[in-house]
Amino acid sequence: MTAEPLFGRLALIGFGLIGGSIARAARMRGVVGEIVATARSAKTRARVMELGIVDRVVDTNAEATDGADLVILCVPVGACGSVAQQIAPHLKRGAIVSDVGSVKGAVVRDIAPHLPAEVHFVPAHPVAGTEHSGPDSGFAELFINRWCILTPPDGTDAAAVDRLRAFWTAIGARVEIMTPKHHDLVLAITSHLPHLIAYTIVGTADELGEVTSSEVMKFSAGGFRDFTRIAASDPTMWRDVFLTNKDAVLEMLGTFNEDLSKLTRAMRRGDGEALFEHFTRTRAIRRGIVEIGQDSAAPDFGRLQTDVQKT
Amino acid sequence: MTAEPLFGRLALIGFGLIGGSIARAARMRGVVGEIVATARSAKTRARVMELGIVDRVVDTNAEATDGADLVILCVPVGACGSVAQQIAPHLKRGAIVSDVGSVKGAVVRDIAPHLPAEVHFVPAHPVAGTEHSGPDSGFAELFINRWCILTPPDGTDAAAVDRLRAFWTAIGARVEIMTPKHHDLVLAITSHLPHLIAYTIVGTADELGEVTSSEVMKFSAGGFRDFTRIAASDPTMWRDVFLTNKDAVLEMLGTFNEDLSKLTRAMRRGDGEALFEHFTRTRAIRRGIVEIGQDSAAPDFGRLQTDVQKT
Ligand SMILES: NC(=O)c1ccc[n+]([C@@H]2O[C@H](COP(=O)([O-])OP(=O)(O)OC[C@H]3O[C@@H](n4cnc5c(N)ncnc54)[C@H](OP(=O)(O)O)[C@@H]3O)[C@@H](O)[C@H]2O)c1
Ligand SMILES: NC(=O)c1ccc[n+]([C@@H]2O[C@H](COP(=O)([O-])OP(=O)(O)OC[C@H]3O[C@@H](n4cnc5c(N)ncnc54)[C@H](OP(=O)(O)O)[C@@H]3O)[C@@H](O)[C@H]2O)c1
Repeated sequence: MTAEPLFGRLALIGFGLIGGSIARAARMRGVVGEIVATARSAKTRARVMELGIVDRVVDTNAEATDGADLVILCVPVGACGSVAQQIAPHLKRGAIVSDVGSVKGAVVRDIAPHLPAEVHFVPAHPVAGTEHSGPDSGFAELFINRWCILTPPDGTDAAAVDRLRAFWTAIGARVEIMTPKHHDLVLAITSHLPHLIAYTIVGTADELGEVTSSEVMKFSAGGFRDFTRIAASDPTMWRDVFLTNKDAVLEMLGTFNEDLSKLTRAMRRGDGEALFEHFTRTRAIRRGIVEIGQDSAAPDFGRLQTDVQKT
Repeated sequence: MTAEPLFGRLALIGFGLIGGSIARAARMRGVVGEIVATARSAKTRARVMELGIVDRVVDTNAEATDGADLVILCVPVGACGSVAQQIAPHLKRGAIVSDVGSVKGAVVRDIAPHLPAEVHFVPAHPVAGTEHSGPDSGFAELFINRWCILTPPDGTDAAAVDRLRAFWTAIGARVEIMTPKHHDLVLAITSHLPHLIAYTIVGTADELGEVTSSEVMKFSAGGFRDFTRIAASDPTMWRDVFLTNKDAVLEMLGTFNEDLSKLTRAMRRGDGEALFEHFTRTRAIRRGIVEIGQDSAAPDFGRLQTDVQKT
């Protein structure tokens, strides 16, 4: 619980997994004085009202923006430009405008031109999520111990960056600052390429003639099911990510394809030593991730044995 | 708890994740009268003794086999042939010989020629596991609600197959029967190709110049960390899998590569509709897997929030 709210009024534009988690966390920690939320559809807005975790739900992006000290766009990357255009005339002098988009180069390019000079634009990306989406999917703990990357353009007011850093820190995250370009490369390998590959292999498995979908599902515990979780993520969000971070993803994909060819050649030639050496090397990075608290050390992610029938 | 043990004496040759889980489960359920275990190294044998979950630990595969009613080889696929040769002269008349290897064609080819006519050979593969290995990694619940695939050669005694089925059922598994060839195709897509891809991308991430390993680890919560779990699996086991199921894996890899090229082309051309359509289709298979109880429905696998600091 912070002593005094960091911002008087927070406006959340879009209320899905990320917007909903920010609202729950900010309220739980008392980080802002008031939360105003909106979403595109009347259905989502009605649901947010029902959930009772924000102070006001309004019908338009413009209304949400009026008088807000911090405005966070929590919509798919491809929608950021048009939302920025809508809110621009309503932004309060000195307000901070931010977002949570998974791509930063394109988002900065789409948002920045619309904003008036007297507001501060500090783009952000919390590297945290689940495969679920919508207003019910959020939870207050989502950002705890996860990193939030800020990519302020050159010349951004340092005090505004510090205030946004304080906001993310207050809801549990650790903050790092980098350029949009570097962000997009880092995320291409740590998030976007893994999703592309997962979407691909799940599609492949679904189309095979010799092995049925029912067999794929039954015997998925051998590794495949891990990929299906990722490939169950929101299609709109991921379409936008691949359309807007194409160059970095293609670059990483090029290296991945070369590496896959190398391992395939080793397998084809029966080169057990090369396979063994590669499979040994890859263990270190897992150990590192567990050590720095970015994943659970429990076997199998500590998957809930909810379906275990103890007799 | 079964009324009467299904087998008098069970011999486990190899005591790692799978052998150790069988021992714990069989003991907990009272499925066998006595468990005798052995492992290659004195270190593992000493540890098994300490754990106190089997009745006897012996030094050699031959000794373990003497007088056993069910002998299960729980060693890497590549070691099955030589172990079969060692135990063959010691097999009791009418004993059932089985294994747990992740590949079945090669294992049958390597084991069968060594076995005397008066024993029953019923190869098996429990489709269950974690990324850990060694005598301490096993647990009694591993096989609950997971499938165990039996691949008895043509002409195998039906009563022997039934007894092995009863054994796996008693320790929680569901049993399916198929040919070794079909098994190897099914597992190539549900387990072996996912591992190959995970091993590849984790290797790729580790070698990049522009993005450091430290960045890869810090920002791994965007999806990458799921792959590192799989790529932390035992190198010996996986070397053997790829050396012995090469053909089926190469076949699945061919289809995967075509599908990856298709998605890459859609991304390159900016074809959002094709991406959206693909990303929507892949959600169904996840739903199916959760519905049939082969994965947890909890977001993010219900990953333990052990590192969550609630303040
Ligand atoms: N999911 C993750 O794991 C994750 C992680 C980090 C960052 N992000 C980023 O966070 C942002 C939101 O993702 P999310 O997972 O919270 O998505 P979500 O659960 O699907 O919610 C998206 C919200 O945006 C609204 N919206 C969708 N399309 C819109 C449009 N064209 N114009 C205006 N509003 C629109 C939706 O309104 P309706 O409900 O009315 O349709 C909904 O309120 C994305 O930019 C994504 O890249 C996601
Ligand atoms: N791990 C999985 O997820 C999984 C799932 C289903 C099936 N399987 C299959 O189960 C089998 C065992 O896997 P695991 O995960 O239990 O492995 P593990 O934990 O590494 O244990 C392997 C055991 O085999 C022994 N061993 C290793 N190399 C040997 C050799 N050349 N000759 C004789 N013994 C040897 C080891 O002895 P020391 O301890 O003395 O070295 C150890 O006792 C493999 O065939 C694998 O394909 C594994």
